[in-house]
Amino acid sequence: MTDFTRTKSRFAIPDGVVYLDGNSLGPLPVAAADRVGRMISEEWGKHLIKGWNVAGWMTQPRRIGDRIGRLIGAAAGTVVVGDTLSIKVYQALASALELNPSRRMILSDTGNFPSDLYIASGLLGSLDRGYELKVVAPEDVEAAISETIAVLMLTEVDYRTGRLHDMSALTRKAHAAGALTVWDLAHSAGAIPVDLAGAEADFAVGCTYKYLNAGPGAPAFIYVAPKYADTARPALSGWMGHHAPFAFDLDYRAGPGIERMRVGTPPIIAMAALDAALDIWDDISMTDVRHASIALADLFIREVERRCPELTLASPRDGKRRGSQVSFRHPDGYAIMQALIARNVIGDFRAPDMMRFGFTPLYIGEAEVLAAVDVIADVLNNRRWDTADYRKKALVT
Amino acid sequence: MTDFTRTKSRFAIPDGVVYLDGNSLGPLPVAAADRVGRMISEEWGKHLIKGWNVAGWMTQPRRIGDRIGRLIGAAAGTVVVGDTLSIKVYQALASALELNPSRRMILSDTGNFPSDLYIASGLLGSLDRGYELKVVAPEDVEAAISETIAVLMLTEVDYRTGRLHDMSALTRKAHAAGALTVWDLAHSAGAIPVDLAGAEADFAVGCTYKYLNAGPGAPAFIYVAPKYADTARPALSGWMGHHAPFAFDLDYRAGPGIERMRVGTPPIIAMAALDAALDIWDDISMTDVRHASIALADLFIREVERRCPELTLASPRDGKRRGSQVSFRHPDGYAIMQALIARNVIGDFRAPDMMRFGFTPLYIGEAEVLAAVDVIADVLNNRRWDTADYRKKALVT
Repeated sequence: MTDFTRTKSRFAIPDGVVYLDGNSLGPLPVAAADRVGRMISEEWGKHLIKGWNVAGWMTQPRRIGDRIGRLIGAAAGTVVVGDTLSIKVYQALASALELNPSRRMILSDTGNFPSDLYIASGLLGSLDRGYELKVVAPEDVEAAISETIAVLMLTEVDYRTGRLHDMSALTRKAHAAGALTVWDLAHSAGAIPVDLAGAEADFAVGCTYKYLNAGPGAPAFIYVAPKYADTARPALSGWMGHHAPFAFDLDYRAGPGIERMRVGTPPIIAMAALDAALDIWDDISMTDVRHASIALADLFIREVERRCPELTLASPRDGKRRGSQVSFRHPDGYAIMQALIARNVIGDFRAPDMMRFGFTPLYIGEAEVLAAVDVIADVLNNRRWDTADYRKKALVT
Repeated sequence: MTDFTRTKSRFAIPDGVVYLDGNSLGPLPVAAADRVGRMISEEWGKHLIKGWNVAGWMTQPRRIGDRIGRLIGAAAGTVVVGDTLSIKVYQALASALELNPSRRMILSDTGNFPSDLYIASGLLGSLDRGYELKVVAPEDVEAAISETIAVLMLTEVDYRTGRLHDMSALTRKAHAAGALTVWDLAHSAGAIPVDLAGAEADFAVGCTYKYLNAGPGAPAFIYVAPKYADTARPALSGWMGHHAPFAFDLDYRAGPGIERMRVGTPPIIAMAALDAALDIWDDISMTDVRHASIALADLFIREVERRCPELTLASPRDGKRRGSQVSFRHPDGYAIMQALIARNVIGDFRAPDMMRFGFTPLYIGEAEVLAAVDVIADVLNNRRWDTADYRKKALVT
């Protein structure tokens, strides 16, 4: 059994804070600051340009990709790290469309993270040859999979409600209809067990700053199924994905397998924080994480509904159909969340009315859940949120 | 006058090292480790998700973009930071092509950094509608500008030889022929005075890990001329470039001006190092940098040619026609460079036979130039490079 009291000590969470926003930005791993400091002072400072070889910088995107791969059911050599999630969505979608050249339809849903939809429409605007992006409600996705679909592009866990798609079943149906799949694991990696190989997913992408705790704007990752790894054409064909980057040929030749999904020079300082954050996962069972996270979220739902009837559950009640977050709706959700944050219960808000609370057992236990509900009940039942200060919108909500 | 003894003290260069590879990776600014450490421990660790507002993370790509803008002749609000240089090349080229829709030819040269050419061919592969990438010798660029060219895409300073294009004259000729320009400033920003506004450049991109000293894989930047900033369509339309990212609309609407060239969540840890590195430039005159760098490079050329006649100068002899680096050819350049590095004179090598030495007066003075030449002369004149060890190729050359 995973010892979650031990994992909690590996995070530097300020005293008194109940941090329920790991679904947006994971907290600081204790080891990250030293690790980044060493990378800067010892590797960059002392090795200078030699760091690319002697400190292994150049091979990190693959090495760290393999560490993430173990958390998402991806074989060694099928995941690579770099860029941002939006860039990785672009790469995956562009390659997937070309692997299904006779079709012109992308299917997605309104529960996909908007940036994925924006990236798709930007790509289609460039291609300008009759492609269409069809966006249906999450519950209508399965029925909308037809033989006109080139690519099914979904986020597995809905960023607003936490609703969980059945990756395996939808991928199977997509394949039966002749479509490829692009799965966004932003709210899955580190939150729930993922089995990309078992589900026969074609492409997957994700970020590392949520449940993987690698810091604000940490690098993203991309997975390509082995069957496509050597044939997918990289749309963003940067030198790091070249077969021989340091030959400096004038012509592009895609590197072997997943290497071709690398683009530019890898972000070494940021990867040091990511590498430190991944150390925490070495002794953890994702099945234990899943069980504990469902139990915490169930407890939270039960207690909130009992004490704050004016909040409406927006997440599936069945824990198996949720990711690792719970959302409640309230017309004044924004101001309520500001009042909670002012009282050190930190969740976040998504327009128009959704309050999100993430439950990761790595640093949240029953005591934190009950403490959070006490504060929520106090804020709700005494209308402590109803002030001009809490209604004032910040740049980032 | 810029006091270059003072700037040298702002870098943590190991004792005894003569670092002539700032054209590949700038050395560590003394202030960077503390600055990044503070960002991690104080901002991420204590503010957690609130850092996006209270620590100003969300607006950093523009704020730091403006700091870089001052070094390259770009007005406030025309430069934004993020991603890698290859990604920024893709954005600039994709937008520029659409702004010149009736033409199908991109003109570049063999002195462009290969990744720029790779990115162009990847983009053209996606567009798949008759675009052509024409790559000529650097000295033939001017004559090749014709009324069939949609976009002239060049790196201002040749990464191998240091040869400097005349940005102003070539842009003028391109415009007269009805073409747009994309300038890569990888070897210009922080090395030589650049006047994007004065040259009427349309798009420009660059990296910050060379002469701007922001660390391995540090974020890149993009400039869009004000006349196109509100009309350029972003091909990589991520949520950070959306008009209202936190409205989470399903449809993309490009943000105002340069904001639309943002893509994904900004890399905050890496930007802390960049911000610290840019502090060094606050008291520096780029004209002083230019004069001092030419004087150092001229001294180096004179002394190397006098003492090592078997080396062939590959850079322009006229300092005004060079960037801030000097290259010499030798058939055994790779092994010679390894021997130099083993003796703490650090330059680098570019296939097939080019040894590069960068001269930035921020941390290099006459004493370092003469010390480097002593070592080069010893290695050459005593064939100290001629060992199996030095011939053994590393992953990164």
